[in-house]
Amino acid sequence: MIIVLKPNIGKKEEAAVIKEIKKLGYKPHIMRGVARTVIGAIGDELKNPSLESLPANFPNAVESVMPVQKRYKLVSREAHPANSSINVRGNLIGGKKFQVMAGPCSVESEMQLLTTARAVKAAGATILRGGAFKPRTSPYEFQGLGLKGLKLLDKARRETGLGIITELLSEAHVDTVAEYTDIIQIGARNSQNFQLLIAAARTGKPVLLKRGLSMRIEEWLLAGEYVLSNDNPNLLFCERGIRTFETYTRNTLDLSTIPIIKKEAHSPIVIDPSQGAGRADLVMAMCKGAVAMGADALLIEVHPNPAEAWSDGAQQVSLPLFAKLMEDLKPFIAAAGRD
Amino acid sequence: MIIVLKPNIGKKEEAAVIKEIKKLGYKPHIMRGVARTVIGAIGDELKNPSLESLPANFPNAVESVMPVQKRYKLVSREAHPANSSINVRGNLIGGKKFQVMAGPCSVESEMQLLTTARAVKAAGATILRGGAFKPRTSPYEFQGLGLKGLKLLDKARRETGLGIITELLSEAHVDTVAEYTDIIQIGARNSQNFQLLIAAARTGKPVLLKRGLSMRIEEWLLAGEYVLSNDNPNLLFCERGIRTFETYTRNTLDLSTIPIIKKEAHSPIVIDPSQGAGRADLVMAMCKGAVAMGADALLIEVHPNPAEAWSDGAQQVSLPLFAKLMEDLKPFIAAAGRD
Amino acid sequence: MIIVLKPNIGKKEEAAVIKEIKKLGYKPHIMRGVARTVIGAIGDELKNPSLESLPANFPNAVESVMPVQKRYKLVSREAHPANSSINVRGNLIGGKKFQVMAGPCSVESEMQLLTTARAVKAAGATILRGGAFKPRTSPYEFQGLGLKGLKLLDKARRETGLGIITELLSEAHVDTVAEYTDIIQIGARNSQNFQLLIAAARTGKPVLLKRGLSMRIEEWLLAGEYVLSNDNPNLLFCERGIRTFETYTRNTLDLSTIPIIKKEAHSPIVIDPSQGAGRADLVMAMCKGAVAMGADALLIEVHPNPAEAWSDGAQQVSLPLFAKLMEDLKPFIAAAGRD
Amino acid sequence: MIIVLKPNIGKKEEAAVIKEIKKLGYKPHIMRGVARTVIGAIGDELKNPSLESLPANFPNAVESVMPVQKRYKLVSREAHPANSSINVRGNLIGGKKFQVMAGPCSVESEMQLLTTARAVKAAGATILRGGAFKPRTSPYEFQGLGLKGLKLLDKARRETGLGIITELLSEAHVDTVAEYTDIIQIGARNSQNFQLLIAAARTGKPVLLKRGLSMRIEEWLLAGEYVLSNDNPNLLFCERGIRTFETYTRNTLDLSTIPIIKKEAHSPIVIDPSQGAGRADLVMAMCKGAVAMGADALLIEVHPNPAEAWSDGAQQVSLPLFAKLMEDLKPFIAAAGRD
Repeated sequence: MIIVLKPNIGKKEEAAVIKEIKKLGYKPHIMRGVARTVIGAIGDELKNPSLESLPANFPNAVESVMPVQKRYKLVSREAHPANSSINVRGNLIGGKKFQVMAGPCSVESEMQLLTTARAVKAAGATILRGGAFKPRTSPYEFQGLGLKGLKLLDKARRETGLGIITELLSEAHVDTVAEYTDIIQIGARNSQNFQLLIAAARTGKPVLLKRGLSMRIEEWLLAGEYVLSNDNPNLLFCERGIRTFETYTRNTLDLSTIPIIKKEAHSPIVIDPSQGAGRADLVMAMCKGAVAMGADALLIEVHPNPAEAWSDGAQQVSLPLFAKLMEDLKPFIAAAGRD
Repeated sequence: MIIVLKPNIGKKEEAAVIKEIKKLGYKPHIMRGVARTVIGAIGDELKNPSLESLPANFPNAVESVMPVQKRYKLVSREAHPANSSINVRGNLIGGKKFQVMAGPCSVESEMQLLTTARAVKAAGATILRGGAFKPRTSPYEFQGLGLKGLKLLDKARRETGLGIITELLSEAHVDTVAEYTDIIQIGARNSQNFQLLIAAARTGKPVLLKRGLSMRIEEWLLAGEYVLSNDNPNLLFCERGIRTFETYTRNTLDLSTIPIIKKEAHSPIVIDPSQGAGRADLVMAMCKGAVAMGADALLIEVHPNPAEAWSDGAQQVSLPLFAKLMEDLKPFIAAAGRD
Repeated sequence: MIIVLKPNIGKKEEAAVIKEIKKLGYKPHIMRGVARTVIGAIGDELKNPSLESLPANFPNAVESVMPVQKRYKLVSREAHPANSSINVRGNLIGGKKFQVMAGPCSVESEMQLLTTARAVKAAGATILRGGAFKPRTSPYEFQGLGLKGLKLLDKARRETGLGIITELLSEAHVDTVAEYTDIIQIGARNSQNFQLLIAAARTGKPVLLKRGLSMRIEEWLLAGEYVLSNDNPNLLFCERGIRTFETYTRNTLDLSTIPIIKKEAHSPIVIDPSQGAGRADLVMAMCKGAVAMGADALLIEVHPNPAEAWSDGAQQVSLPLFAKLMEDLKPFIAAAGRD
Repeated sequence: MIIVLKPNIGKKEEAAVIKEIKKLGYKPHIMRGVARTVIGAIGDELKNPSLESLPANFPNAVESVMPVQKRYKLVSREAHPANSSINVRGNLIGGKKFQVMAGPCSVESEMQLLTTARAVKAAGATILRGGAFKPRTSPYEFQGLGLKGLKLLDKARRETGLGIITELLSEAHVDTVAEYTDIIQIGARNSQNFQLLIAAARTGKPVLLKRGLSMRIEEWLLAGEYVLSNDNPNLLFCERGIRTFETYTRNTLDLSTIPIIKKEAHSPIVIDPSQGAGRADLVMAMCKGAVAMGADALLIEVHPNPAEAWSDGAQQVSLPLFAKLMEDLKPFIAAAGRD
């Protein structure tokens, strides 16, 4: 870490700072400039419990403390230079083939789910999404069908051969959800629910980690680190829009995460344009952008009748629109060098 | 809800919208303006599963849908016009007496905790804070002493008579934490972990609900609604800073939440200036502002030696500084008409 | 506009609100629900000077006021359903041909500018960018060459035939800048400097309006309205990244603006990936996304030696990288149906 | 500045970076850690034109570049340790006496202005605010009375003896506005309109600089530096709320700016709770907080009839409410040790 001292401090205060740096296990490097002195503290910042504490203790001596070392290890390209890919029932996410996961926001009924599953399979999707346990802003909103929803997903899988992705939102459900799903989805609101991340990781199932509403890239990578450091290499990052000042869209889909995750980490990156925009009429353009920028997969909300959906109707696309979308994406998938 | 139709749509589309509104259980009121037609849909919006879905279904007919009804009920002043107050070992939070909760970010050792407990009690605090289970951004950071930490909090309570507040971060710990604590703290990162909120509420213990990093007022009130609708009236809201573009401070403490929560809800409002600023040197001014604006209590991080704290050293105040702070607050507490 | 009354207000307060609504020139429509009464006020909201004022005056009667009407007219698709295009020295922006504007952040010297101009032309750009007057965060940073810079741009135009785009940052410079440039650029920091917008509009030159750092879509469209309502139809919107909580990138490039501007307005949309990311290593992916999502043009910072640039070196791409970028974009331009 | 090299780079790349550092005028200090090498570049960062450019040029060698030096000088406490105060017609802003500036958002008529001026004077305000030139989001909204408004302000000053503050929004108006006003207000949207700042500074009149909607503290201080470095020491900072994700209030008033500006700079800090909240019902609490936290003055919007105001009706307080506010603030002003 780098410690910037205030201008014009005395020898005594400088010595006190250096003593504290050594006590914390670092080797100090002193650089004297015209206006102020800067100390490079060389050592392992990850092990240090209170790196940021110096200013509090020497309020008259230290101006700022800046970390130097990256805080994530296992997710980083430095640790694992090649791309990782995740095998879901024979479909590789993160490989040459571009993958599409699609299905309703919530599982509502057998007919709704099977109709959707058949349609998205016919259009080219390989994985079926559908919420059985739903985290809802209000306690008065539909909370999902629970176990019944999981069983319907299983039924759809057996009939269509599609893989399944569904959300886990409680440690209490981890065994049940893991029994039925192929990918465990961790939602944006639980993206720093570390106990849930650990529980999900320990099932050994692939974990799709959505970015939190106001999560910085570094925090997202560190949340992913919770999965990898619990002995589960099957991690997928999923951008679903961040919260900004803009009110035209529900969230601001940050497509720059695609090149950034590709640069910093080795796990696949998935884009969710449905949550990202919160508006069905923007989904098509978002998908094209995601494909062109190098995303590995899309996660799209599709419903047979969006107007009567039990949750998030405004952002789900209809079955014919989804079929058109899959068709329209083809030239962009080709341009991106994917199948 | 209010449905704004696009300009110049035909009779047929208008009729389709009205039919859908009726199907969803609303009574339509049609208002024709010069440029466009607006439909007021009168009925209970809370029961309606897909209120926002109309635009998706009639992309050529509907321009926007605006909710009218407030989504929260039990937390609102409409439901409960008088202030609620919470009794913690004889100390009333939300009453005439201003309360201070103080203690270390993490429980580290018996000496650290007891030294702090005695000092904050001597300075006038009535509740001791201390983290036993810690949610940390990185898996490599100190995760808390766990049960051992809870037992030290219990020991400090028995010695000093202070009430205890500590964080719950896993449903799996709910019985254990509830056994040792007087107030269950739900941290910012778990503020929309609804399963955890329900589990905390069901213990019957007071629940202090921190505002999430990018949580809107309405979402915060609705998260509180999860507590009240699970038969626990003992809710406290705690503002601890939101995430903005600013980098000078760790978070932006939003003190406007004090008059807003007082206006919209009946539960007490607590301010956490330590997390709010992330800098010990700003805590004093933040506390003065919170008191003047009508907060019911403060939650302050205090450590015998911030420079060597195992977590968040930069934002913890030292024991002498805390004593001075309590002294300096007195005229502001008096000006605010509190004891 | 829609006025939501508070629950349980009396006849007298309701009558006072209705009287005020009529005084403001609206026709009231009263809708009584179970919990509260909602009033639709039908009339021209654009003319009304104090639409938002009702709550202030009747603090015990009115809960909220929501506008219904769109505030922009001339920029909207309703006013002008077809796409507009801008002719710059024979190159149409907003037509079938995809356009690229490229050049250095600042004009530094004849050699720097001409080297860049020749290289970007060879690679396929049709318009040369270069700052002569530079808005800089600090007064101690390079403020641009001023008139000398404009003359160098003119020289580059005469030699290469490229069109010119350069920034206007003062009303005092408007005649000088308009004399030399083909497109007047209004920077993000001046995006709501309305006097500057009016002055730029009145030159009759095409105006490229960058989105402000925290500008909502509606505000951006209304700033564009200042150009069109001052009798200048030659408006281009340019997304250059918004300010969010993220610190990995300098700004968050909001590519969703492409489909949104295309939906709401008729003017071309240009993407600036250099400002948008603030990092040269992300520019390529951003450009691919912009093309795929339907942008009409790109505005890219290119410098012969970014490490020694006088401003914003980190985000400028080198000449060989720019040539490669133009080559790599070709399949995406084709996939998007552009030339 | 601190340059962090990537792990495992070769001797040759390291030498190239060091050569570039020296070329830019810095003296390099090399610190070798286990995982990577860090270089401290000691020298004057303010003079360096392209400090941030290294990563672009050596994409395989440099991981990050961090500035060390503060970019502002004249506004800083280091340059001027004592508080500055501004004398406005015998009233000192930044001295022991707490000051209140109040008046309507826009000057509308002689009666409106004089009624307000007399009332705010009677209640204890010493400076009259009122907009003559108004920056409005839409071109169809009331743009201010212009010169006629300035003359009415002058008339109110002659009658009441109050000082005058009014906004400058165009370089073209600078002489006219300076002739009539005692303090020149630079609005949030023009906070980085550097040409306007320079023009305002050169009048020699006190300049009140509002914080931009998404302006970081450092940028605000640097905008202030434009005033001081143009030989005008009479600068006031004014916080008026920043733009965040919250929609309950129009802006989020960041009261932490009070202790921060006091710590970093020597100029007075003024709080505008009217713009800050955008709601008259929150103004009282905001004022109390501002006083308690050490603000030097308040800037409050007051209107004889907010419901019929020509701009921003929702955030203006009525005359009786203002009188009550001034009364209620007294104990907090005393507690803060001010008169």
